[in-house]
Amino acid sequence: MKQDKTAIDEKGIKARKSENFSEWYVQTLIKSEFIDYSEVSGMYILRPSAYGVWQEIARVVDQKLKKSGVENVYFPIFIPEKFLAKEASHVKGFTPEVAWVTESGETKMKERLAVRPTSEAMMYPTYAKWIRSWRDLPLRYNQWNSVVRWEFKDPTPFLRTREFLWHEGHSVFATEKEAEEERDAILPMYLEVLKDYLALPGIVGRKSDKEKFAGAIASYSIEHILPNGYAIQGPAFHLDGQNFAKAYGIKFLDKEGGSSYGWQNTYAISTRNIGIMIMVHGDDKGLVIPPRLAYVQVVIVPIYKDETRGKVIEFAREVEKVLHENFRVKVDDRESYSPGFKFNEWEMKGVPLRVEVGPKEADANKVVIVRRDSGAKSDTDLGNLSQKVSAILDAIQQSLYKRAEEFMVKNIHSVKDYSEFKKVLADKGGIIHAPWCMGQACEDKIKEETGAKITNIPFNHCPLEPKCIYCGRRAKAMANFAKSY
Amino acid sequence: MKQDKTAIDEKGIKARKSENFSEWYVQTLIKSEFIDYSEVSGMYILRPSAYGVWQEIARVVDQKLKKSGVENVYFPIFIPEKFLAKEASHVKGFTPEVAWVTESGETKMKERLAVRPTSEAMMYPTYAKWIRSWRDLPLRYNQWNSVVRWEFKDPTPFLRTREFLWHEGHSVFATEKEAEEERDAILPMYLEVLKDYLALPGIVGRKSDKEKFAGAIASYSIEHILPNGYAIQGPAFHLDGQNFAKAYGIKFLDKEGGSSYGWQNTYAISTRNIGIMIMVHGDDKGLVIPPRLAYVQVVIVPIYKDETRGKVIEFAREVEKVLHENFRVKVDDRESYSPGFKFNEWEMKGVPLRVEVGPKEADANKVVIVRRDSGAKSDTDLGNLSQKVSAILDAIQQSLYKRAEEFMVKNIHSVKDYSEFKKVLADKGGIIHAPWCMGQACEDKIKEETGAKITNIPFNHCPLEPKCIYCGRRAKAMANFAKSY
Repeated sequence: MKQDKTAIDEKGIKARKSENFSEWYVQTLIKSEFIDYSEVSGMYILRPSAYGVWQEIARVVDQKLKKSGVENVYFPIFIPEKFLAKEASHVKGFTPEVAWVTESGETKMKERLAVRPTSEAMMYPTYAKWIRSWRDLPLRYNQWNSVVRWEFKDPTPFLRTREFLWHEGHSVFATEKEAEEERDAILPMYLEVLKDYLALPGIVGRKSDKEKFAGAIASYSIEHILPNGYAIQGPAFHLDGQNFAKAYGIKFLDKEGGSSYGWQNTYAISTRNIGIMIMVHGDDKGLVIPPRLAYVQVVIVPIYKDETRGKVIEFAREVEKVLHENFRVKVDDRESYSPGFKFNEWEMKGVPLRVEVGPKEADANKVVIVRRDSGAKSDTDLGNLSQKVSAILDAIQQSLYKRAEEFMVKNIHSVKDYSEFKKVLADKGGIIHAPWCMGQACEDKIKEETGAKITNIPFNHCPLEPKCIYCGRRAKAMANFAKSY
Repeated sequence: MKQDKTAIDEKGIKARKSENFSEWYVQTLIKSEFIDYSEVSGMYILRPSAYGVWQEIARVVDQKLKKSGVENVYFPIFIPEKFLAKEASHVKGFTPEVAWVTESGETKMKERLAVRPTSEAMMYPTYAKWIRSWRDLPLRYNQWNSVVRWEFKDPTPFLRTREFLWHEGHSVFATEKEAEEERDAILPMYLEVLKDYLALPGIVGRKSDKEKFAGAIASYSIEHILPNGYAIQGPAFHLDGQNFAKAYGIKFLDKEGGSSYGWQNTYAISTRNIGIMIMVHGDDKGLVIPPRLAYVQVVIVPIYKDETRGKVIEFAREVEKVLHENFRVKVDDRESYSPGFKFNEWEMKGVPLRVEVGPKEADANKVVIVRRDSGAKSDTDLGNLSQKVSAILDAIQQSLYKRAEEFMVKNIHSVKDYSEFKKVLADKGGIIHAPWCMGQACEDKIKEETGAKITNIPFNHCPLEPKCIYCGRRAKAMANFAKSY
């Protein structure tokens, strides 16, 4: 065994999740080689395990969208300034963060081009051209790309970055009812992906008018609670009504022979949810990646002395062969590191299962399996291994979700009055569920006085209380308030 | 049957492939709704069938790369100017076409950022950081993204566009030999994808020094011949030697304890090959998409009168059910168009197989199958349909390739002397296979006098002739010359 205590210490995560959450988060991402800083501030490099997670999320979402009738397209990366300017609240919402292309080669361009912050302004002039009659509807298109939003606040990997990867769905329907039906299909689809793949629960609801998407008539979101008590928005769905249709001229000949504007939706899930997943599941040892998204699902670590090396490595390869077909598996046969170093490294990288094989195991034709989430150890024969691994990976996936759900439920607080609101928010954080008059004045005041904004008005809510938590007038909704990213 | 002769005429392709090739190409792409113009000159919109083709190519290439040990990463879209400037010939090759971001929101940036034209300059400073020892090698990373090159020549969809989609592979090896071995694996992989999916043959070879990639020590390409007699470069592979490694400081501790520079490769296939595929296979009726890439593989067109409508539509649905599991299939039950109109439209869109069902077919439980490539018709029972469709789709895929290969072979001309060179090039076009002294002076003169450049020096070539076709000195290679995009 080599001496590599120093190497472990250097590579290990110094910050604790419970003590210095932000520092723990960044150290974990960087030291586990999940991401890295790039040469542009606020833009990060996705290394293989991070891109692998995104590629798998994208694969699943793409499959589900296609099954529901959505088709993929690709619109150009640049948007001429005049198109961005067509929908008033949209341009107001996005131009402060636009990265502008103004020169090509050594030539100054006549008109600035926006690197897309989102593609409404690029797609809808063409939608207007394509859509002539009710027969062309519904039009349900989606694209996979990256968008640039030049945030000036401090960047946080995945959560607030100047470029992120996402898909953007952009639909046009003949009627408002159909547009709403799409909302009722897409939001549950996102919830399903979050649960089955990211092991993340979320709170679905409607955004307040103040917090809605620039250009929408109503926005819906899935909100998450982070271990530091802050809330953060995950996937979003926007009913755009006829706002963009009027701005960009998306009109069609309806069945009655008249001319109508289309009803539009936009919706997205992005790499941001990877950050949320890391924050929720990770621990002081590093990443904890849900099995279905793990780039490596099982790592096999051979444990040997010089005289048993041959036998153990051979057995490790045999174990790999057994698992190879059904799992993403890797044998760590690096000679320059000790088993202990390897254990730490793979734990830091969040690999769900470690399989240990030594001379004893090779002789008995069995292995030791160690769970990343709980540290629980078990033995199994090679004959049962594949079945056992499959069962444990499922169990981890479910256990991560369950733990996250328990945490979420525990951190949604119903309060009786505004002083309790402030106290619970300050002491416990999380989400405060409280009655609201739906007036923006109260929303603004609460934000000003407590730092909490409305994350959303959840679909699942407590019975409506009679009075607004702030002004005492008649409450119209039970809203969720939180300090939020 | 509705009267829609006018509608067909309006929608049909006016230009003939043999008479006005460029006009035919653009009309075909636009009228078949494969692509559309965007609001930015030189950038095009990929509509569902075009994006579907790319998504399938990407899926297959991604799978093959992963199987060979390549891992995916994602590096940011913007490259600070100072990094682009590090490798002298690279910066010279790319800066004239760079789209520069100079403003964010209303703020002028301190340093211009290049929208990536290719990612060497962004990835390699980080590679230098990641690679410390021979144990970190080989490093074989790939990314899927879009790149921007602000061409000032006339744009051509897919072939010369200001944005295109591609993958870019970027490897580092400890030795030159390993780097060359990767070339010997990647080029055949591209050939296989081109053949099995795009039904395209190609000529593999080495580029002349004049035509090689900006920064490479040797470039390799797969070249295609287009129906208009022009050649065009498809996928490319570049041995970068240690050029970038020296410019960006990619050094590693070698096994002997010394410090060495890495040996690098870059390689790519892009959406350009979709344009080549369209040009090669298409005909006067429109697109001809190889079955394995077709967005819709089988279209079912019901043919009925008012009194047989119910029966025929029901049967069409039954046929769809039979095919649905194994093929991308669509029933065209639009009521406002005649069967003839639908036939024309789906032929224009390049759908490989049409299945016609009428009342007679419904009664006899059989269908008529029509091939897009040959127009050949055949009958089949519902019981044999799935097997038959599978066989015909395979036959079309192979037949398209075979026809393209015959065309290619017929258009490679070996010539005896320079006057024959000029005559054959002028009369027949295509590729001229001729001995060359490997001097750039001759290469330049030939280009100047005939318009033909060296596409590549093919791996499969005729026995070396003694004298250079231009200067008469000793020939060192059999090169391919052509007028080229």
